[in-house]
Amino acid sequence: MFEAAEVGHRLSKDEWDAQIPELRRKLLEAEYRLVEDPRAAVAVVVAGVDGAGKGDSINQLHAWMDTRHLRTHGLGLPTEEERRYPPMWRFWRRLPPRGQIGVFMGSWYTAPIIDRVFGRTDAAELDRQLDRIRRFERMLAHERVVLLKLWFHLSKEDQETRLKKLEGSKRTAWRVSKRDWEHFELYDTFKEVSAHALRRTSIDVAPWVIVPGAEPRYRQAMVGEALLGALERASRSPEPASAPAPIPTPSALDERTVLSALDLSQSLSKKKYARSLEELQGRLNRLTRKKRFRKKHSLVVVFEGMDASGKGGAIRRVTSALDARQYVVTPIAAPTDEEQAQPYLWRFWRMIPRHGKVAIFDRSWYGRVLVERVEGFASEAAWKRAYAEINDFEEELVEAGAVLVKLWLQIDPEEQLARFRERQAKPFKRYKITDEDWRNRDKWSAYARAASEMVERTSTEIAPWTLVPANDKRFARVAVLRAIDDALQAALE
Amino acid sequence: MFEAAEVGHRLSKDEWDAQIPELRRKLLEAEYRLVEDPRAAVAVVVAGVDGAGKGDSINQLHAWMDTRHLRTHGLGLPTEEERRYPPMWRFWRRLPPRGQIGVFMGSWYTAPIIDRVFGRTDAAELDRQLDRIRRFERMLAHERVVLLKLWFHLSKEDQETRLKKLEGSKRTAWRVSKRDWEHFELYDTFKEVSAHALRRTSIDVAPWVIVPGAEPRYRQAMVGEALLGALERASRSPEPASAPAPIPTPSALDERTVLSALDLSQSLSKKKYARSLEELQGRLNRLTRKKRFRKKHSLVVVFEGMDASGKGGAIRRVTSALDARQYVVTPIAAPTDEEQAQPYLWRFWRMIPRHGKVAIFDRSWYGRVLVERVEGFASEAAWKRAYAEINDFEEELVEAGAVLVKLWLQIDPEEQLARFRERQAKPFKRYKITDEDWRNRDKWSAYARAASEMVERTSTEIAPWTLVPANDKRFARVAVLRAIDDALQAALE
Repeated sequence: MFEAAEVGHRLSKDEWDAQIPELRRKLLEAEYRLVEDPRAAVAVVVAGVDGAGKGDSINQLHAWMDTRHLRTHGLGLPTEEERRYPPMWRFWRRLPPRGQIGVFMGSWYTAPIIDRVFGRTDAAELDRQLDRIRRFERMLAHERVVLLKLWFHLSKEDQETRLKKLEGSKRTAWRVSKRDWEHFELYDTFKEVSAHALRRTSIDVAPWVIVPGAEPRYRQAMVGEALLGALERASRSPEPASAPAPIPTPSALDERTVLSALDLSQSLSKKKYARSLEELQGRLNRLTRKKRFRKKHSLVVVFEGMDASGKGGAIRRVTSALDARQYVVTPIAAPTDEEQAQPYLWRFWRMIPRHGKVAIFDRSWYGRVLVERVEGFASEAAWKRAYAEINDFEEELVEAGAVLVKLWLQIDPEEQLARFRERQAKPFKRYKITDEDWRNRDKWSAYARAASEMVERTSTEIAPWTLVPANDKRFARVAVLRAIDDALQAALE
Repeated sequence: MFEAAEVGHRLSKDEWDAQIPELRRKLLEAEYRLVEDPRAAVAVVVAGVDGAGKGDSINQLHAWMDTRHLRTHGLGLPTEEERRYPPMWRFWRRLPPRGQIGVFMGSWYTAPIIDRVFGRTDAAELDRQLDRIRRFERMLAHERVVLLKLWFHLSKEDQETRLKKLEGSKRTAWRVSKRDWEHFELYDTFKEVSAHALRRTSIDVAPWVIVPGAEPRYRQAMVGEALLGALERASRSPEPASAPAPIPTPSALDERTVLSALDLSQSLSKKKYARSLEELQGRLNRLTRKKRFRKKHSLVVVFEGMDASGKGGAIRRVTSALDARQYVVTPIAAPTDEEQAQPYLWRFWRMIPRHGKVAIFDRSWYGRVLVERVEGFASEAAWKRAYAEINDFEEELVEAGAVLVKLWLQIDPEEQLARFRERQAKPFKRYKITDEDWRNRDKWSAYARAASEMVERTSTEIAPWTLVPANDKRFARVAVLRAIDDALQAALE
């Protein structure tokens, strides 16, 4: 893997002087082209051997580029705050939007490699993490993030020479600590683990580029050339490679679906409702105040359902049991400009709660396989790959301690019509009904088909859907609270 | 995951009679379209719960289709013979060619799921296996194999009812063994592991289809519809989804590569050569006769290099140390028709040796990133994804005990010219030189670039390249033998 970086690449001063002005001109031009026509984002991952010139190279890049559109994130160990979120959260929130360049020093590769070098994980666990990274990066590529991954390499001999040279001079001896030599002792292990990691994560849309770190001019020119290639790819009218078309999946042959199979006639008397509501809200309140919840868990509740299925009312019954400082309710409508410049899941990652907090989504990331599918806002290829992307996303949440409750509120078309009419009749509710609601109603069966396929493909063993019969609002609200309480209790036990 | 299959789907006799003749007609039509215009192969994976009707469904399919183009492989545990090959070998050799349908009862999913259910693997190992399957299936999709994955489901209650019913009748009681009830006890574990496996391997190009197994008519109609969809996809002018374009990687900025850095002036005297040759051949012979080699290992040697770099001569020095019954030398030229109807790597999988055997490749699967890249026979997307596919392939070989030695024989253009001239001068060697050789020579630098990128991307910690200075034939032959001997010895120690 690293042989090619050890053949003594170098650039003479003359060659440097001859090539670099042209390279810099092209880099700036490419950067402005990207900014003016932001087709994609460019994310640069910088990793490799200590002392191979990572920092110097980035500083040089900052000198070459217009830094208004280039941002470097130096990420060390996660902070106290970041540890309360899923591990990928801190990278997601720093993803560059389209038209910008983001440089990651310290990336999603750091922990998997270091943990393995120090024996904190075994080979299988490392592979699991690397495969997840592969999926993550493929998803980014689909979402128009051009990934440039630079691995700075230094041979063991060069590394040793460098440390001795630094130690030998009074001016620089302080830069070499006992720890540097301890790390040097681990060189071979580090190299072996890195080679494995690079091999497993070098894919067509995100190959590693090995940068020989020993000679500064060659190293810097190569970094510049590599960035230029990525910038050009990001701006070029994307002549996409052709991927295999998604496979068609048969729809149900009868009218029965998990949704139509629900018994919508179930209802609750006022009296029973009042009693259950009080009991369940009390339980929810106690559960979310438990120390274990505050330290290790968060609660993410997703509400989906047809228009007028009672999501808002149910959400209010949940939030009234919670401390106002503890929760955020996010209604999902059209994305903002900022959100539109990012990969699809970015807007949801930014709303993921930390430990001890509650995030309630009134509609959610499932929009991609519901409204975006039915209305044609997403291509078939995009919504078909979304099932797997969503399952990966939810796995990351759950592994980080999130209790994820996904609720589908099911009503029938007659009940919807009655509710629409009621809304139009009552002046203070009229704002809740628009022409769009009537249009969506015409597509009832398309939405029903999308919803039942959604349940089929994303009701997983780690994040199952709870299907709530919602023709009777009281019945639905109690069922919603019970589902949340039960899930929380199961996680806290 | 399985909720949708438990809502009591059924088809009445009347509905069956109304729908099935049309479905059968369409299936046959689609099959013939595929046969006449073989754009893709269709591979059907059949898996799921015992007693959910897998066998019955396949039998029915055989009654519906023209079985000249449909072949079902009932694969149980690997045979004694199959255990001597990498685990995926038995599936590769049964892949349907384009224009045909292959049904796998017992597939690459069986062992990962069963091993986990019986606790022989842990969660991380299962995920590693599933991720590998994901990559395998994505590769198949790229190589025009349409994958239909059917999971036959039966609820726990239905499963119990079925077993009791069989036991209750004298005529069928023999069909229920103690083992069936033991398996039934594992139902919940099996379901949990399966749900996880299905979630991890449901991707856009190979999603799972859950078939409700309880009611035979519905089940059968659904299998038919699903197959029809796959057949239509296979025949349809593939309107491919757009994939992200591959990322450009910078080429070397100076003329130095791992290949140019070799010292080609190294040579060996006749006397030293004779002594080394004898010693190394003897060692090779002893190593390949060791019991440990015969039981647990195989030897795969790949020779690559420019024309006239001395591959043939070196190969003869290797084979003359081996038992003629033990090795096969395969020269790789243009693929046969049969090979062309299969995924790229198929022709190499069929030549993989079993334990105790030696396979020598005179040129190899690296053709895709060498000649096919340079001559434009493979698209940029295809050869760029090949690096990762090849690394995966080699990982499977090595994990199954293969000692993989990859040799690049390096000569310089002057030496090549001298050898070409020599060949033309000697009548008995003239057949070895063609116009094509002269044409390739014009592309020397393109080949050199492709070769050094190949080394960079596929010299992995499990299967490194050995670069052999080959201007001096004696030096090269000894280096080749030494590399093979050393690799064998390391594996056998």
